[in-house]
Amino acid sequence: MELFEAIATTRAIRRFRPDPIPEDDLATILFAASRAPSGSNRQLFRFVLLRDDETSRQAKALIGGVARAAWNAKRDHDGYDRGSGNDESSPKARMARAMQHFVEHYEEIPVNVLACLIRHRAPTPAEGASVYPACQNLLLAARSLGYGGVITGWHAGAETELRELLGIPDGVAISACIPLGRPLGHHGPVRRRPLAELVYDGGWEQPAPWAVDPPGTRFAQAGPPRS
Amino acid sequence: MELFEAIATTRAIRRFRPDPIPEDDLATILFAASRAPSGSNRQLFRFVLLRDDETSRQAKALIGGVARAAWNAKRDHDGYDRGSGNDESSPKARMARAMQHFVEHYEEIPVNVLACLIRHRAPTPAEGASVYPACQNLLLAARSLGYGGVITGWHAGAETELRELLGIPDGVAISACIPLGRPLGHHGPVRRRPLAELVYDGGWEQPAPWAVDPPGTRFAQAGPPRS
Repeated sequence: MELFEAIATTRAIRRFRPDPIPEDDLATILFAASRAPSGSNRQLFRFVLLRDDETSRQAKALIGGVARAAWNAKRDHDGYDRGSGNDESSPKARMARAMQHFVEHYEEIPVNVLACLIRHRAPTPAEGASVYPACQNLLLAARSLGYGGVITGWHAGAETELRELLGIPDGVAISACIPLGRPLGHHGPVRRRPLAELVYDGGWEQPAPWAVDPPGTRFAQAGPPRS
Repeated sequence: MELFEAIATTRAIRRFRPDPIPEDDLATILFAASRAPSGSNRQLFRFVLLRDDETSRQAKALIGGVARAAWNAKRDHDGYDRGSGNDESSPKARMARAMQHFVEHYEEIPVNVLACLIRHRAPTPAEGASVYPACQNLLLAARSLGYGGVITGWHAGAETELRELLGIPDGVAISACIPLGRPLGHHGPVRRRPLAELVYDGGWEQPAPWAVDPPGTRFAQAGPPRS
């Protein structure tokens, strides 16, 4: 697949078929992840795969439990069942249905990738520069092979149990959990805010009039659907 | 360019031609960056470009000054002029020459992109999941158009001055500075550790025998050249 097509159509995928991912494809996806840069090229990223063995199934159940609790709390807190959430065709209601499906079927997702980072110094907000570029390579490669996924942080809600179950040492950050599988729905164009709102030229909020989206680009507001 | 070719050949570029980057290409590169995911799709990434106006030149001079001081300290501390560093053909000496060129010519690099993140909560090590995937998209897109760059953190050494000069508010993280331009040298295959050292299956340090690099892959040890 052409690079820009992959970049423009790698949507967050939250509904999956249960089919396993062949190991050849996993190797290709992880090879892509490992080509990413990291600080001083230290390559301290590590990828722990959770597939179908007993330990992995236990780990996925831990994460799934957190996901369900977190989504239920968010649905109430953010009012997904109120306002336009009552209109089944609204973006809000569609998002709510996708999330509900995601968490209810979490344990059926064939692969979870825990993207980890061996810390060589105290945690900082910048350490992600050594692991999240690899996560993006992983998602792009997966998309080009017909798979999909999404970067999540639910694992943090069961981190102590996951570390014990999987033997992940204290000096290692679990930076992301990426569920991976074949999408139930379809890939398609990613929508974002207009480029001119995201790009500044020469200083904060200095307009960049040349920062124009390609013809035909459709836009989306930021964040989860609101009202 | 095909996705996997782009991923496998996006090297860190540290030596640049001074030619400016046409605005059409910048728009394409930043459009790619903006397609990246971010937490809850909040799209709080912002890209501040430093090009050729007076303010941008001052900002680049600030970052260049830090880069020179940091590299001089690192060259001494890490012994780049000792051991195999005396052998001009050693990886260590080549790395030292590239870094020396990088910092000495910093102000001539046509574009710096400050990848910023508007913080909607207190800083955390996980916040990078909302900005570094965009940095990787940016580097891949640049590479496919014949440009190159590298994720750096030198701006942190002049952060107070940069915030004042560029008007970047306190609640915004400057997550990376990415110099961009046409490479003086060539792109080519990225080298990393063997995949089997980076991928675990079912638990920490559990081998993934299927995690095999493609035939012909050449490897590199992690980190800066050592001795």
